[in-house]
Amino acid sequence: MKASHIALLSDFGTNDPFVASMKGVILSKNPKVSIIDITHNIPPQDIKTCAFYLMVTMEYMPKNTLFLAVVDPYVGTGRAALWIKTKNYQFLTPDNGIISWIEEKEKIIEARALNNSSIFLDKISMTFHGRDILSPAAAQIAKGLSEEKIGPVFSDYRKFPYPHPVRIGNKVVGEIIAVDRFGNAITNITREYITINSVFTVGEKTISGLKPTYASVAEKSALCVIGAYDYLEFSVRNGDFAKEYGVKSGDKVEAIVEI
Amino acid sequence: MKASHIALLSDFGTNDPFVASMKGVILSKNPKVSIIDITHNIPPQDIKTCAFYLMVTMEYMPKNTLFLAVVDPYVGTGRAALWIKTKNYQFLTPDNGIISWIEEKEKIIEARALNNSSIFLDKISMTFHGRDILSPAAAQIAKGLSEEKIGPVFSDYRKFPYPHPVRIGNKVVGEIIAVDRFGNAITNITREYITINSVFTVGEKTISGLKPTYASVAEKSALCVIGAYDYLEFSVRNGDFAKEYGVKSGDKVEAIVEI
Amino acid sequence: MKASHIALLSDFGTNDPFVASMKGVILSKNPKVSIIDITHNIPPQDIKTCAFYLMVTMEYMPKNTLFLAVVDPYVGTGRAALWIKTKNYQFLTPDNGIISWIEEKEKIIEARALNNSSIFLDKISMTFHGRDILSPAAAQIAKGLSEEKIGPVFSDYRKFPYPHPVRIGNKVVGEIIAVDRFGNAITNITREYITINSVFTVGEKTISGLKPTYASVAEKSALCVIGAYDYLEFSVRNGDFAKEYGVKSGDKVEAIVEI
Repeated sequence: MKASHIALLSDFGTNDPFVASMKGVILSKNPKVSIIDITHNIPPQDIKTCAFYLMVTMEYMPKNTLFLAVVDPYVGTGRAALWIKTKNYQFLTPDNGIISWIEEKEKIIEARALNNSSIFLDKISMTFHGRDILSPAAAQIAKGLSEEKIGPVFSDYRKFPYPHPVRIGNKVVGEIIAVDRFGNAITNITREYITINSVFTVGEKTISGLKPTYASVAEKSALCVIGAYDYLEFSVRNGDFAKEYGVKSGDKVEAIVEI
Repeated sequence: MKASHIALLSDFGTNDPFVASMKGVILSKNPKVSIIDITHNIPPQDIKTCAFYLMVTMEYMPKNTLFLAVVDPYVGTGRAALWIKTKNYQFLTPDNGIISWIEEKEKIIEARALNNSSIFLDKISMTFHGRDILSPAAAQIAKGLSEEKIGPVFSDYRKFPYPHPVRIGNKVVGEIIAVDRFGNAITNITREYITINSVFTVGEKTISGLKPTYASVAEKSALCVIGAYDYLEFSVRNGDFAKEYGVKSGDKVEAIVEI
Repeated sequence: MKASHIALLSDFGTNDPFVASMKGVILSKNPKVSIIDITHNIPPQDIKTCAFYLMVTMEYMPKNTLFLAVVDPYVGTGRAALWIKTKNYQFLTPDNGIISWIEEKEKIIEARALNNSSIFLDKISMTFHGRDILSPAAAQIAKGLSEEKIGPVFSDYRKFPYPHPVRIGNKVVGEIIAVDRFGNAITNITREYITINSVFTVGEKTISGLKPTYASVAEKSALCVIGAYDYLEFSVRNGDFAKEYGVKSGDKVEAIVEI
């Protein structure tokens, strides 16, 4: 599906020229496309954090944007590559679950396995399919390559369920769904589940009440805030909550809500 | 005023997808505009450092560039948003003093309060007006929205005076006007006030003479240099001057100049 | 030579607005050109690492791309600036050897000294020729400035030889050619010289066998991998190999290959 914009997500960082090589390949094939960097600082190989960022940023991107998301721990092991279409967006990723949570925003209406090697680079490395396969394919798709030419319809792609929080009486049970580079532990609990005076627990750590901003507590103190994407987060001001309290994606979170 | 380029400054960093969300909103409304990242690594909530970077970079940007500067410690407290026009540039920022020092380069010839909510996003968060209000407004202004439609003329915007250094005999008295992410303490004293053999003091620390580059001193040694924007800086080679010597924006600086 | 894309490499980092100032100058003179950031995190003043990144990324960039590479330890000392043309690309850099290794990919077919001051900024600083000289020149060259107007043909530019590895019996002798920001020590030894069970030595450190990825070893352990550009690298997982083992560019590397 023709696209004016390609939005990139990866765990490559920006010190090495990996992202630049992908952009070079894209612009070599499609010089007019506009590239938006969502982030390249996803924690290495953290598929769930990538899924989270995709879910929370997609609605702010221009219609028809092609998201090229490359967090690829299984590169070189024969995993498929996947093209996905929703009502307003499209996605090109390794088939490893990155697209799992976009259906919280828009239903998937078409999925294909990318297997048309005529649109890949001639020389394909073992370790960098983002540059050699996904980028040239993204360039062609954004130019308007017909969907049949991407590859066959493919419905058996990897997808992990979105963990909706559960309310039981005055208790809300959720989990950590992403940990960012600063060690902020982002939960699946959104603002409407909780109150400002709720009591929050993850692992051994309990925090009373929401703070409006990091600056509301002393340096190195832990706090709970609602982040910019409206999810409850556990943080340490100018510190690393996840490391300090041994918290990781999937850990259970509880909120006791005043009634 | 129509603009081909929007230049972004913020304290959001580039790990999280905040900047990307702003770009997505801008490009959704104005797909052809070109976006220039000035920096997103302004120290958190440091309005004066943002004012400094705006002052020193504006003249290098294309004419008519719209600067969208989002350092916004008072978001959600009812502070206004501000559109400012000078001879060659325009600015959209929270009304918190960010634009204070642009008049060192070009006089302000028009100022309006941004209050036309028909150009904001439909859903406005408490904490991210950069994405929900300023970005969509910037997109429309760059497309040529007439000035009256931004909002009413507004002359009572926040502005702090530029602290010009003062020369008294062989002494020049100035102050720290910005501290960068590396802890370099940038003063308001420009090259023409001093000589290579001047003696510089900030707080308890005195340094004799200007060095041409960081590499002129040993690792972890303090030095004074003229930075790329022509201001005197106190630095520690591969260290953090501001932290090591307890220096912050506003601190007094003295130079004893040879005569 | 007309170019649709300018690719930037530098050691400026992205905290300070230096790169943004270069982009502003370029877009002021050539508003339609597309700018690709290769990396701005080359270790400060490390000409060889810049030469390496140029060599390994150039082939992925769009044809005719103008590479503007600014690692400039001798700025202000009278060193020349250089325009270089190969079959498919062009380069604008300080004359300090940055372009030394591009001939591993494409032969240089024309070289000129940049001395046409009518295409520089009016005000030229002592310390930032990247912004004041190279950027405005790049903008004009990309717009199609004729080659004669860049400056005179110049064949005596600085160039250091590419250190090809040498095979002697079952031993391959090479060297470290780049150290990245994470302390990974990149060698000049490519995959075809070695086997998965080779034994690698640099300085005092010997490592047996190639690992497929960083994650193949424990945290803080040293390993050898083939990086994304197909060169053997010495790394410490989540650590800094170069610092820990005192390794730097130019150090000798040996591989004992099984036969």
